[in-house]
Amino acid sequence: MDTLHAVTPRLLLIGASGTLGRAVAAELGQRHDLITAGRNSGDLRLDLTDAVSIRAALAQAGPLDAVVCAAGNVHFAPLLEMSAAQWNIGLADKLMGQVNLSLLAAEYLRDGGSITLTGGILAEQPIRQGASAALVNGGLESFVRAAAIELPRGLRINLVSPNVLTEAMPAYAPYFRGFEPVSGARSALAYSRSVEGAQTGQIYRVH
Amino acid sequence: MDTLHAVTPRLLLIGASGTLGRAVAAELGQRHDLITAGRNSGDLRLDLTDAVSIRAALAQAGPLDAVVCAAGNVHFAPLLEMSAAQWNIGLADKLMGQVNLSLLAAEYLRDGGSITLTGGILAEQPIRQGASAALVNGGLESFVRAAAIELPRGLRINLVSPNVLTEAMPAYAPYFRGFEPVSGARSALAYSRSVEGAQTGQIYRVH
Repeated sequence: MDTLHAVTPRLLLIGASGTLGRAVAAELGQRHDLITAGRNSGDLRLDLTDAVSIRAALAQAGPLDAVVCAAGNVHFAPLLEMSAAQWNIGLADKLMGQVNLSLLAAEYLRDGGSITLTGGILAEQPIRQGASAALVNGGLESFVRAAAIELPRGLRINLVSPNVLTEAMPAYAPYFRGFEPVSGARSALAYSRSVEGAQTGQIYRVH
Repeated sequence: MDTLHAVTPRLLLIGASGTLGRAVAAELGQRHDLITAGRNSGDLRLDLTDAVSIRAALAQAGPLDAVVCAAGNVHFAPLLEMSAAQWNIGLADKLMGQVNLSLLAAEYLRDGGSITLTGGILAEQPIRQGASAALVNGGLESFVRAAAIELPRGLRINLVSPNVLTEAMPAYAPYFRGFEPVSGARSALAYSRSVEGAQTGQIYRVH
């Protein structure tokens, strides 16, 4: 389609400095003009917990064909030791941060544009200390399915659910025994499917 | 087992005055001593959005073998018209209200006791204006799977995911066209399976 549309599509990538974000940038940067955003790095400042900063980044990014979020914090702790503030990290950041990003992106994206969020395998396969991550990832999966049927102007929304990343195993292996890690590069293919395919309301599992 | 254990098990039922709660009371009240709790009715006052009131109700209920929640509010509105306050209704009430209830019940339940939460079909099958309900129900499903592997003392936790209730169709039919409603009585069987069975981490779908 690039041969028909001479203009390179413009993609806002949140969390471009992380393991997953770098892999997504390497894959989609080949065929997109990337605008990167992050809390502390990238072309634009964007804090998922702050809807004002999300809107400001979207407004500054200029015309967009795709928004990809490869960021989002949750707190890991033993189930019965989680404080309200610790639960709230996942709720305000990875969960509602990505929800708010989606709703605001729906205002700024060009017709037919796409939104791609990040969940994770813990939605289905729990680990100890991962109840907040599970809740957040499960909520995001159902949100994406629901949002897909209400987005206007041919906008699409999907979620990528990666397994634990190979690159993260040095730190995370004790928590993910027996899980089969996937590389950032392999996970990035799912983001490509979401952005460059035509489906909506999908959960792309890289498990 | 009742013939071996002469004592009738004690069950705290939250939301006993609702359609679902009344059906659960009719089914499980046959074989349990019911203590009912609700925001405005029942034996005890309990507001899911207020952890202090949850703890007070659990403390007042006396020894418990089961906690069942058949309550939980979410706001329905067009996706792009939902305010932060409207999103927060579902997050604070049906989602984190039931999470907090579970964590506090884990302190008060007898060894081997059970927790049964309520989700819903929108986690999987979205309807217009139902993005918040979807998110909340999806989050609860993943939370229950995760919490089940960390609860101590043989405590169990499951979730019932009902379809739209037959009794609710006079009001909800326009939003649930084509859904096959289920009666409160049929849904109550799933609560019985959760409370009187032996599984944990299960989603009982009444679809």
